[in-house]
Order: sequence, then C-alpha cells, then structure tokens
Amino acid sequence: MFYLTIDILGTIAFAISGVLVAMDKRLDLFGVFIIAFVTAVGGGTLRDLLIGYTPVLWMRQPIYLVTIAGSVVFAIIFRSKLKYLTKSLFFFDAVGIGLYTLVGIEKGIATGLIPIMCLALGTITACFGGVIRDILCNDIPVIFRRKEIYATACILGGGSYFLWRFFLKEEYAYLAGILLVISIRLLAVRFNITLPSVYKVKD
Amino acid sequence: MFYLTIDILGTIAFAISGVLVAMDKRLDLFGVFIIAFVTAVGGGTLRDLLIGYTPVLWMRQPIYLVTIAGSVVFAIIFRSKLKYLTKSLFFFDAVGIGLYTLVGIEKGIATGLIPIMCLALGTITACFGGVIRDILCNDIPVIFRRKEIYATACILGGGSYFLWRFFLKEEYAYLAGILLVISIRLLAVRFNITLPSVYKVKD
Amino acid sequence: MFYLTIDILGTIAFAISGVLVAMDKRLDLFGVFIIAFVTAVGGGTLRDLLIGYTPVLWMRQPIYLVTIAGSVVFAIIFRSKLKYLTKSLFFFDAVGIGLYTLVGIEKGIATGLIPIMCLALGTITACFGGVIRDILCNDIPVIFRRKEIYATACILGGGSYFLWRFFLKEEYAYLAGILLVISIRLLAVRFNITLPSVYKVKD
Repeated sequence: MFYLTIDILGTIAFAISGVLVAMDKRLDLFGVFIIAFVTAVGGGTLRDLLIGYTPVLWMRQPIYLVTIAGSVVFAIIFRSKLKYLTKSLFFFDAVGIGLYTLVGIEKGIATGLIPIMCLALGTITACFGGVIRDILCNDIPVIFRRKEIYATACILGGGSYFLWRFFLKEEYAYLAGILLVISIRLLAVRFNITLPSVYKVKD
Repeated sequence: MFYLTIDILGTIAFAISGVLVAMDKRLDLFGVFIIAFVTAVGGGTLRDLLIGYTPVLWMRQPIYLVTIAGSVVFAIIFRSKLKYLTKSLFFFDAVGIGLYTLVGIEKGIATGLIPIMCLALGTITACFGGVIRDILCNDIPVIFRRKEIYATACILGGGSYFLWRFFLKEEYAYLAGILLVISIRLLAVRFNITLPSVYKVKD
Repeated sequence: MFYLTIDILGTIAFAISGVLVAMDKRLDLFGVFIIAFVTAVGGGTLRDLLIGYTPVLWMRQPIYLVTIAGSVVFAIIFRSKLKYLTKSLFFFDAVGIGLYTLVGIEKGIATGLIPIMCLALGTITACFGGVIRDILCNDIPVIFRRKEIYATACILGGGSYFLWRFFLKEEYAYLAGILLVISIRLLAVRFNITLPSVYKVKD
C-alpha cells in the first residue's frame, strides 16, 4: 500500500511533466495524452520488453492508465496554475525515480540477472520514459545534455542497494536505496552539482 | 480472403504514404524502403512486442514484405503520377486504420486483456506505424499535432465494438467496428472536424 | 574465440563511432555513454526483441557492457587523437557489420525463419544500432540519407550466405558471407559507389 502510493505519486509527477512538455510543443489533445503516458510508463515498458515480461506492466494493471488519464485532465484544466506546483512536481519526480530505480532492480533480480544488469534495468525504468518523451517531441533527450545528476543519482543510489544488502534486511536495503537516489537527486539540484560535458578538443 | 484483401490494401496505402514522406526528405533507396516498411508494419510490430507475440507478425508472414516491396517499386516508378492517387490513398488509409484497429483489438482479446487495453492495442496497431515513420524522419509525429480525428476515430470506432457485441454476433460486431472507424475518419475530414490543441495560457 | 575477437573489435568500433557522434552534439558523460552503448548493441537488441529472445543478449553477456565502457573511457581520454584512428575505425566498422549481419542471420535460422527474414534480421543487427543512435541524437538516420552502400552490403553479402550453403560447409559459407559484406563495403567506399536517392520529380 505504501509503495503503491509512492508509485502513483511518481506516475502523476511524470505524467504532468509530460503534459508540460507536450503543451510547449502545442500538441493536440491526443498528442498530450500520449506524451504524458509515455513519460510515465515508457521506462517500465522498455524494461519489460528487454527482459521479456509481456504483456507489459501497464497492460496488466489498469491503474496506470487511469492515473495518467486523470493527471492529464487535471493538468489541462489547471494549466495556468501549474507553475505553483513546480516544486512539488520536482519533489515527486525525485521520489518517482527513486522508486522506479529500485522497482527495476527488483525485476532484474527476479529475472536472474547479475547486479550490474539489474542496475542498468533500474536506471532504464527510471530514466527512459523521459528519453522516449523527448524523442517523440523531436528533442535530444534532456538527460543526455543537461549535465544534471539524474541518471547518475539512479546509478549511485540503486548501486548502493547491493551494498546495503550485506548489512540490512532486504526491505530496509530496498528503502535505503530509494532514499539514497532521492537524496542524491535533491542535493545535486540544491547545490548545483553537474556532470562534465564531453566534446572534441579543438586543435 | 475478404479480410486479407482489405489488409493488403491497407498495407499498400500505408507503404505508399511512407514513400511520399521519405521522398520529401530526399532519402536514398534503402531509406525509402525502410520508411515505407515501418509505416506499414510498425504499429503491428509494436503491438506484437507489447503483448509478447514473437517473432512479430511480419516475420512470420512474408506477404507483408512482398506487398511493401512491390508498393515501393510501384510508387517510385510512378512517382510523378502519385498525386492522382491521393484520394484513393486517403480512402485506403481510412480502410486500413479501420481494419488494423479491429485486428489489434482481437489480438488483445486473444491475449486475455481487458477491453480498455484491447482498445489501446488496436489504436497502437492502427496509428503507431505513422508515429515511427515520423520519428525516423525527424518530425514530431503528425497525429500528435494535426488535431485531425485520426486516433480518435480508432478509439471511438474500436470502442464501439464492445457495445455491438451485446447486440450482434461477433463477426458483425467486428465489421460494425471497422465501418465505424472508417466512417468517423471520412466524415471528420469531409466536415473538417478537429481536436482542440492544448497549450499554456499566457498570464 | 576467433569470432569473439571479431565481435569485440566490431563492438569497439561501433562504440567509438557513437562517442564521436555524441561529442559532436556536446552531450554530457551519461549521454555519451548511452549513445556509444546504443550504437554498439542497439541493432542486436532490436533483433532479440523482434524474435522474442529475452532477456536480450547484452543483459546475458556482461562483456558487451564492459567493452563499451572501456571504449568510452578510452575515446574520451584520447579524444584529440581519434582522427588518427579514423581509418582503423572505418575498417573495424566494416568488419563489425560483416560479422553482425551473419550473427543475425544465424539467429533467424535458429528461430526457424525463412531466408528472406533471416536476411532482414541480419541487416537489422548490423545497421539499426546506428539508426537508433541517430534518432537519439535527433538526426535523420545517416544510412537512410547518405546513399552509401552500407545496408546494401549487408543485404548482398548476407544473402550470398544462402547461396554458399549449396556449395560449402556451413562454417565456410558463414565466413564467405562475412567476407563478402566487408569486401562490398570497403570497395564501395574505395570506388565511391552509391545508391540513387529518390525524390519527387518536379512537374
């Protein structure tokens, strides 16, 4: 119940971030819905495809579709007020990537993958909804460009799970992983810590 | 036999629409073929991946590959005359999305999905070939922008199938669904009915 | 062992070509890694998804991830010297598509597909890593535009495998196919042989 609530909050945050991007591009109603949908469940869908868990999760559990549809309607109706939500959305998004990272890691473990692949799967779950959103909107994915600590937070926090498991019971290790992803993400933005960008040196 | 004929006509219409887009982008021969191919079978491929029906349909049934290759050759040879085909192509395309929607819905039912997910699957089958085509051509997918009643026709007509089933035998409900998708699409274009676009209100 | 070595050389060539494209786009470190990764294993991943071989290959065999990570680090450190490697990279790339084409064909045969579909699968394996790289980088895929004999080399050389099999033992037919892909590619570039581009005739 606790996890489900976080999951739904994360889904809402991702869906609304999708609506915002789609409105910037002046898409029509169908386009806005699809972008919101893809932002929220695209990462999990790619994860499910890569490990062969089909039909993919959102097809089995209607709650995602319902939540996203509700979020889209809400976001469109209150679109002139969404700026007051920016901070909450940012926070939910951080919570969302924390949870999604660990959900993906768990799925990888259940599939019998080695830790590094579980971690890749967790990062894909958390980050690739946004990547697919940006591709559909004809942008270079923002997490490849912005130098923000976003995927990096998933990798570090998610990776810590495998360390915690030496010391803690699984549930606690799981929770510690989620909290570390969230903390790294929030702290990186708070203190403006970024990744280097990489480009050819002129010579 | 009847359905197969419609299916092939739809495939041809989609493939030729792909060729037209690819020629606008001045792609080479290989690019033109791939765009035509993806336009025609991309939606069905995504559907098959999402439900785990692999190898995907076009790999099992060579008729799609053959039909598309033939359509590409035809479209390139007669490329200066294709404008005379615009109306027929539009009509075949409408027929194609009608059929593809119901094919997708049937697959969803066979997979044991609930109606709303079957409908999503039908819409994906009908519409996402064009989405993948536009992504490969580096455009924002046209069905997210144009405000046309395209995916909406699939959703309404496909959704009606679940109503018809209360009153009609399955074959008739199936056919009624197809016809309703086609009718909505044709009427929407004829009477210029569009979706609202959604964007941020300046304040 | 011999094949593995070629495979790894191909992976390195693809990964470094990904790094070069990503640096041109001024992506951050995470973006550079993902583009390199996708260039190297994207084609094989799409192949595995289409035939339902999951978890996909790179999740089962950590050597790909390790090789790509190493290539990225190497390419970034020596980024000012990479131009001296252009020729070797081009050669490895040609070797890579030769091997990947035949690997894909073999997988198709093992899946029970007919030869034309095996060939499609081989071409996808060899070429679609670059396609996904270009989509992520917001370009129209280079192999659709450049008119180069690239996919065509895979199709011709890969197709020859099914002919060689009438005359040669399987291992030799396999090797002959690889060598023909590589030869066609190298000769086409050497003698500047291109595909026609296709566009609408003004009238």
